[in-house]
Amino acid sequence: MISAVDLLRDIEAITATPGRGCTRLAYTHHEDAAHDLLWERLERPGLLRLRDAAGNLFVVPARAARGEPVVLVGSHLDTVLEGGRLDGALGVAVAAQVVDALFARPEGMPVGLVVFRDEEGVRFRTGLFGSKVFAGLCTERDLAATDADGIRVRDVVPDAAGCLAYKAPVRPAAYVECHIEQGIRLIERQRRIGIVTGMVGIRRVELVGEGAANHAGTTEMRRRVDALVPVAAAVARLPVLVEGLVDTVITCGHVSAEPGAPNIVPGTARALIEIRAADTATLDEVERRLQALIGDIQPPTPTTRLANLTLRPVSEVAPTATDASLGEELAGVLEERHLAFERLHSMAGHDAQHAAHVCKSSMFFIPSLDGISHSPRESSREEDIALAAEVMLAWAERCADAGSGKREAGSSTSDNR
Amino acid sequence: MISAVDLLRDIEAITATPGRGCTRLAYTHHEDAAHDLLWERLERPGLLRLRDAAGNLFVVPARAARGEPVVLVGSHLDTVLEGGRLDGALGVAVAAQVVDALFARPEGMPVGLVVFRDEEGVRFRTGLFGSKVFAGLCTERDLAATDADGIRVRDVVPDAAGCLAYKAPVRPAAYVECHIEQGIRLIERQRRIGIVTGMVGIRRVELVGEGAANHAGTTEMRRRVDALVPVAAAVARLPVLVEGLVDTVITCGHVSAEPGAPNIVPGTARALIEIRAADTATLDEVERRLQALIGDIQPPTPTTRLANLTLRPVSEVAPTATDASLGEELAGVLEERHLAFERLHSMAGHDAQHAAHVCKSSMFFIPSLDGISHSPRESSREEDIALAAEVMLAWAERCADAGSGKREAGSSTSDNR
Repeated sequence: MISAVDLLRDIEAITATPGRGCTRLAYTHHEDAAHDLLWERLERPGLLRLRDAAGNLFVVPARAARGEPVVLVGSHLDTVLEGGRLDGALGVAVAAQVVDALFARPEGMPVGLVVFRDEEGVRFRTGLFGSKVFAGLCTERDLAATDADGIRVRDVVPDAAGCLAYKAPVRPAAYVECHIEQGIRLIERQRRIGIVTGMVGIRRVELVGEGAANHAGTTEMRRRVDALVPVAAAVARLPVLVEGLVDTVITCGHVSAEPGAPNIVPGTARALIEIRAADTATLDEVERRLQALIGDIQPPTPTTRLANLTLRPVSEVAPTATDASLGEELAGVLEERHLAFERLHSMAGHDAQHAAHVCKSSMFFIPSLDGISHSPRESSREEDIALAAEVMLAWAERCADAGSGKREAGSSTSDNR
Repeated sequence: MISAVDLLRDIEAITATPGRGCTRLAYTHHEDAAHDLLWERLERPGLLRLRDAAGNLFVVPARAARGEPVVLVGSHLDTVLEGGRLDGALGVAVAAQVVDALFARPEGMPVGLVVFRDEEGVRFRTGLFGSKVFAGLCTERDLAATDADGIRVRDVVPDAAGCLAYKAPVRPAAYVECHIEQGIRLIERQRRIGIVTGMVGIRRVELVGEGAANHAGTTEMRRRVDALVPVAAAVARLPVLVEGLVDTVITCGHVSAEPGAPNIVPGTARALIEIRAADTATLDEVERRLQALIGDIQPPTPTTRLANLTLRPVSEVAPTATDASLGEELAGVLEERHLAFERLHSMAGHDAQHAAHVCKSSMFFIPSLDGISHSPRESSREEDIALAAEVMLAWAERCADAGSGKREAGSSTSDNR
């Protein structure tokens, strides 16, 4: 019998950086090893392992592979650089416990597990890639994204053409993902479970400064067109742009000066800026403010010549509401157990966002201690992890029963949005 | 007969980035290939190739290898990333022409060529490394410097222990280097030659911001301790720190946020800051201003929590005067030819700075078109390159004659500072 708590310990051990949190970048042998471990634990007669063009992993009862609609539970196993042990892995471990408990059911809707590839988007600056393919939304541009070594997404996926003309190996009826909150709201409100009402929109833009690379000794200050100085001025003011806006954040997580030598005035500077908000209007408003900020950058001295600043789009994930009926089913499970819960918006993007394009999709959260995530200090209470598995199992059981006509509630297979 | 102009064309062809300027980073096979090309052109009976512990190349008449004091002419063959064709290579090509013309002289002081390794300091963030070893100034810390791949200087030099306990393969009597100005002064003053009176001090410090890495979606703005925002605020104000100071510049050529992902609030941010000034008092003054600037950084919004900012020393090259007698000898050569010249301070650091520790040392410049350097657009007039070789040859001849007692002027071998 698989226990999510135990399985998480084993997944944690797979990392490129032992002793420094978990690092399993997308499409590396570390991510592969975590996928393999999962199948090693789940492999048994009656369960099949299927892989799609993106390398997403499906572990489903044999009848799901024959075309019966399947209830999918899952998340991702890739991580950020030196991240935590739970982001993604929690949802997969919970899914493994659920599938292990339910796979042998002879009737009702089958329940399967999915592990999406490259949720974090660290390596290729993409994000939610595997689920994007699953949603049939993959574009040539996604496949052309490169990592720091110039390796493209299309070089690492099992089947690039198949990502564009996608054919899912199963017929999903519903997708529910369990995840750590990665924020502080559940802890502050003393709740053990949060039902997610929607997921933020995430817009990434790149601020590019173009000046003139030149010798940092012999080029007098008044003759320079330093690309970095005005880009830095903009980055320093980013927090101002979201003042007073609810559920809205802005971050520059990556910045560079080129060519990047101590003795060369930067000819180009880049700042990758990410805006998150619950709705597209707010994303647009913050981008407008950013554009205005850039237009207002002043030279720090009267003789400083300003580099040219432009903003170019990088990627966008649209804000997404979760399926209301799934939310009610989850609420029903919690009410049966007399568990107080919270309804809240997710400030993180999740694979459930893309899954919503092909089936009913929802999520629930458990608390992150101190609200910390994307850090080796990421942590959750063991009893909350066990509760997450219990809740997911109860929901999946109800949902599968509904699929077999045993109960009223449940997912319709025809609701493919 | 070697022509500096022709040899420069062949050296230019050796680069890691064809079509994008010259890239020959220190201790790469590209730098090695340029060293090899030089010897291929110079190899003949009567000339010896010697290498020291740092891999610096000496091409000298055989009698210099037997301990006779030798007049050294040279520069370096490494470049910055996507740099120009003349920075370093000019001085080496001119030296090759001079040694080729003079090697067969049976008497007087022998004239040899030296090519220093890793002048630019791009790869290991060091700079003037080969000449530092030649000056007997190499430290364990220099050898411990690492490149982006974690490779240390001590892993790439031919003999790390020999760098620390240095023994030069020749007895230098004087060193003169010809270089492009890399600035605009000679062009503006319509001079073809500039005799260098001294070389700037170069101090490098790293501004480090320490905050807390966290999820860029779920961490509300008021809960963040973003390391990059205050570092960017400081970088944006750097030009203010040198306002009103003569021959003083400040540059941030490299900046980073860690872990460097678009969806993680930076936990650490680093800005490598370089200050150049003609004297140590000015370097100290600018560093004081920088420290004050850092202390004055304000949060951009009332709820922004400031990361901790510290300044740590990285490296320093002391300001250095050139040898006055060598300057007079060079002036004599120019006056004989009725060539108007300029005396000027070098805002770039040069190997001549370190050579001054072991023998008389000086430099002269030719004009850089548009003052551009450390760029593929770096260029000088062909007739100025030819003139540089002519001037160096005339000086070396006078100097060598003086060594044999033929003339009054010349270098004393006892002046080892």
